[in-house]
Amino acid sequence: MPEQQVKVKFEPHGRVVSVLPGTKILEAAAQAGLTIDTPCGGAGKCGKCRVRLITPKSGPNEAERAIFDENALKEGWRLACQTTLYANAVVSIPDSSLFGSRHQILATSETDQFHEIIPSVCKVKVALAPPTLQDDVPDLLRLEKEVGEFAADISMVRELSPKLRAEGFKGHAILSGNALIDFEPGEISNAIYGAAFDIGTTTLVGVLLNLDSGGECAVASRMNPQVSFGDDVLSRIAHAGKDAETLRELQEAIITEVNSMIEELAAAAGIPIHRIFEVAFSGNTTMEHLLCGIDPSQLGQVPFVPVFAHGLNRPACELGISIHPRGIAYVFPVIGGFVGGDTVAGMLATRLTEIEGPSFMVDIGTNGEIVLAHDGHVWAASTAAGPAFEGARISCGMRATRGAVEKVVFSDEVHCSVIDNGSPIGICGSALIDCVAELLQHGMVTPDGRLLPPENLPPSLPDAFRRRVQIKDNGDVEFVLADGVSLNQRDIRELQLASGAIRAGISILLKQAGISIHDLKRVLIAGGFGSFIRRNHAQRIGLIPPEIDHTKIRYVGNTSLSGARWALLSTDSRLHAETLARKTRHVELSNDPDFAMEFAMAMHFPA
Amino acid sequence: MPEQQVKVKFEPHGRVVSVLPGTKILEAAAQAGLTIDTPCGGAGKCGKCRVRLITPKSGPNEAERAIFDENALKEGWRLACQTTLYANAVVSIPDSSLFGSRHQILATSETDQFHEIIPSVCKVKVALAPPTLQDDVPDLLRLEKEVGEFAADISMVRELSPKLRAEGFKGHAILSGNALIDFEPGEISNAIYGAAFDIGTTTLVGVLLNLDSGGECAVASRMNPQVSFGDDVLSRIAHAGKDAETLRELQEAIITEVNSMIEELAAAAGIPIHRIFEVAFSGNTTMEHLLCGIDPSQLGQVPFVPVFAHGLNRPACELGISIHPRGIAYVFPVIGGFVGGDTVAGMLATRLTEIEGPSFMVDIGTNGEIVLAHDGHVWAASTAAGPAFEGARISCGMRATRGAVEKVVFSDEVHCSVIDNGSPIGICGSALIDCVAELLQHGMVTPDGRLLPPENLPPSLPDAFRRRVQIKDNGDVEFVLADGVSLNQRDIRELQLASGAIRAGISILLKQAGISIHDLKRVLIAGGFGSFIRRNHAQRIGLIPPEIDHTKIRYVGNTSLSGARWALLSTDSRLHAETLARKTRHVELSNDPDFAMEFAMAMHFPA
Repeated sequence: MPEQQVKVKFEPHGRVVSVLPGTKILEAAAQAGLTIDTPCGGAGKCGKCRVRLITPKSGPNEAERAIFDENALKEGWRLACQTTLYANAVVSIPDSSLFGSRHQILATSETDQFHEIIPSVCKVKVALAPPTLQDDVPDLLRLEKEVGEFAADISMVRELSPKLRAEGFKGHAILSGNALIDFEPGEISNAIYGAAFDIGTTTLVGVLLNLDSGGECAVASRMNPQVSFGDDVLSRIAHAGKDAETLRELQEAIITEVNSMIEELAAAAGIPIHRIFEVAFSGNTTMEHLLCGIDPSQLGQVPFVPVFAHGLNRPACELGISIHPRGIAYVFPVIGGFVGGDTVAGMLATRLTEIEGPSFMVDIGTNGEIVLAHDGHVWAASTAAGPAFEGARISCGMRATRGAVEKVVFSDEVHCSVIDNGSPIGICGSALIDCVAELLQHGMVTPDGRLLPPENLPPSLPDAFRRRVQIKDNGDVEFVLADGVSLNQRDIRELQLASGAIRAGISILLKQAGISIHDLKRVLIAGGFGSFIRRNHAQRIGLIPPEIDHTKIRYVGNTSLSGARWALLSTDSRLHAETLARKTRHVELSNDPDFAMEFAMAMHFPA
Repeated sequence: MPEQQVKVKFEPHGRVVSVLPGTKILEAAAQAGLTIDTPCGGAGKCGKCRVRLITPKSGPNEAERAIFDENALKEGWRLACQTTLYANAVVSIPDSSLFGSRHQILATSETDQFHEIIPSVCKVKVALAPPTLQDDVPDLLRLEKEVGEFAADISMVRELSPKLRAEGFKGHAILSGNALIDFEPGEISNAIYGAAFDIGTTTLVGVLLNLDSGGECAVASRMNPQVSFGDDVLSRIAHAGKDAETLRELQEAIITEVNSMIEELAAAAGIPIHRIFEVAFSGNTTMEHLLCGIDPSQLGQVPFVPVFAHGLNRPACELGISIHPRGIAYVFPVIGGFVGGDTVAGMLATRLTEIEGPSFMVDIGTNGEIVLAHDGHVWAASTAAGPAFEGARISCGMRATRGAVEKVVFSDEVHCSVIDNGSPIGICGSALIDCVAELLQHGMVTPDGRLLPPENLPPSLPDAFRRRVQIKDNGDVEFVLADGVSLNQRDIRELQLASGAIRAGISILLKQAGISIHDLKRVLIAGGFGSFIRRNHAQRIGLIPPEIDHTKIRYVGNTSLSGARWALLSTDSRLHAETLARKTRHVELSNDPDFAMEFAMAMHFPA
């Protein structure tokens, strides 16, 4: 039987999620894809995570009383890290409380201009003197004298003169970098748009931005249709490498889906697609190759070398993307075969290299990418952490979709939260971590990962937990979460492997950089999946080293998408992305002589 | 009855022309489109126009004896400006004697590098270390480390990696400017090619060049198929301006013809068209607009403003040109509505601005373009000179095609040379000038342009000339050249208008530049038509001011084509073309208050 859940609606975004009673607003928001900033690590001290609880009424706690005055409390202002939800609720999250929100970033940009909104596509108001016999300068040159030298393709040259003359040489020139891509006659200026995409192995997310204001107009998200050709990167590479036809098939699948998302975004904002002048894509190295129709075969073979490195800045039509006919597509630079544009975008969005003191960013997706930044230097590595966290190779594992147990809490009983409130049909990565952490905590799994049989369980263990440990017909031990959903010894080993890989990667990067784990200033957990992991549980199983003070750990959400958004809004950001990609030292973990030993050690759960 | 003519074959070009007995080799070569250089103005003094007369044997004159030793004379070496042909002949012209030949230009380029052969498309030999786990730099970046940063379109990115791996990361990168356009695996280097085109209103000429050596591989020439839509620039503009369909029709006509010429050139050189990586086009402003599919309507209306000014450097496929799929098309910069890329190419090819002392270039084509250069300043104007010289508006006028009288000599009789030796069916521009010059010389036309009736002819006039002046039934006077081919008073007025327009243009430019006609250092006569004009006759009718010493006048041939050739062979030349186009002051003659008076005065033939 699934647990009774409560529904939470977030304003002004309108997103609704279902959570277990007793869930913090912070966590419910993360589940809705809204990452609330918690500089104090959720200790209720900094007051940064302020939200307004519209319904139901609920009394504040001490921490909230210390932050808000009586009036604010009456209006429903609460701290997302303190208030727990026991009934259906409506919560309003101000932009200023969101991690990576425009407001916040602009507020901190006084000393650093790279996030200023100066999009690569810009609009320049023009009022030219019409030509005369005494001033017979050719049209393009006339325009250049006002807006600076530009390139223009033949179609633009063909269209320009009638457009210049339509409203007496008045209008707006639309430029992308140094290329003229359109001219709009008339004094009135129409808004120009851009779309930013995170091309995940599993999920595609796109946002439509107004490039004049920087504001977000619409969001769309879909499954990556390439999933039908294989659900991880390596199977896509294998399929693409068969022949030119299968490669084309994979590219067409993603391009068709992106074009459909663009139509959805434009429709939601009530604009025609040709008002979108630029689209930015961030994804892992393989996804970016496939998006561009570039054969990724060599990413599947030693030494895993990408084809391109710099960001690609090409006419969108070269990729088959349907926006303005002269619109531009930007694809993030990559660092290496398994450290891709999404990692660069993440560094950009989190301003990782600007944090004072050594800082990590860990993106726990299908692969685990780890970046360590300190003192102007950057190290990055990828680990084959993915499958277990995505539910693969786990006996009852599944992705975080309808019917997946996505949260497990041991209190008086074992409480399971199921996505979409249906009957549980499997377990996804976040619940796997929860469950193993609780099993460890209650002495039901040993630090070396052994799932104890009933006879070896701690004598003090409550019966509610004990009765779930069962011996199968073949003699294997299993822990039963729900009817038909259980964990066995093998599942715990898979989690040890995945978690150990990431922790070993963290250790190797720290060693190569000569930095002690105690000197870390910040650990940022990125990725859609990362947002659902409970910090304490991640540390309990050693996915995040337990030595790190939990206040240093922050969830930063889908930084691949945030980075893509910034690449649209700021030319400086784009240059910065290029610099970040090239300055990052790509560490091949298996090349480090200590990796095997670190990995073996990291396989042990912390005591 | 047509005169008996002699055939002259030129080696190594293989071109054959028919000329009147007594024609100089210089002139016969010009008729074959081979412009021999005559720095001394054909005075037999400089020895620059050396050619080898293979057959028949003929005795040298004094000037030739002064230049050549006995052995050279025995081998048939002669001066093209001295030797006249009375029988069928075979003449070999060394490259060094041709105007604008590579040899000559390179010989004078020691102090000036702009004509050095450094094509925009170049080939860089590459031998990269294959990637390893320790050196996993992405492919494009690996190549960039060897050849410098480049841009690449998506198709190139897609092709690069397999090509790099085909021969162990060895091969040749082919770059156009900063764009990588191909990579050829292997150690052996294949030649790369370019094609240069003169897009004339009437005639198209293309040459295929080996971009490694700079050598010419093939020549092709065709009628401009747009002639069927109107034979002058204004009628083409009118047709193109009707609607989008007629514009497309004109562009398709020229592009189809150019593509067919490219196939012809490639076939002649035995190469596939995808070995051609660049094509350069030079033409007047209207022809260049039509080539690019740009509506030229505004060139037909005051203030005659071109759409583009800078040279266009675009993927050839944007224009529909079929060469290498990533090949480049370069279209010359234009100066104004009627001073186009062909004039810029002419300045480039003749190095007009580098001549010490004030110098003119006059291109007598369908329009007459005039350029005056002095001391770093350049003035250019166009005159509506064309129709008469092209045979239009002349009662028996026709273009210089089969059946046209193209040369007239008054000696004992009136001798006519007819193109292709057929029966005369009309008169072309060069013969019109010849004839009127002779009529003036013999007092049969007065300086104010009156064709005298039989009763007013000079008493001493030989009967061979006198009997050709006849009174028609309507009382008009006419001069009969051949059966059915005659000149009347109106024809002479048309020539006065055309010639006067050019001479007035010359006067206005001299006035605006503050230069006296006596200070002129050089007058270069350019254009296919220009090569056929007899200098003395052009001066006799005042087309070229008679004040100019004839040794200062030189024929420079099809400089539009020579310039296009240099744009292919030298990046510096291309930059120089841009500079020339922009520094040239475009003089609108009708804006000058003195133009009307100058024009009226220039209508008078010199006394």
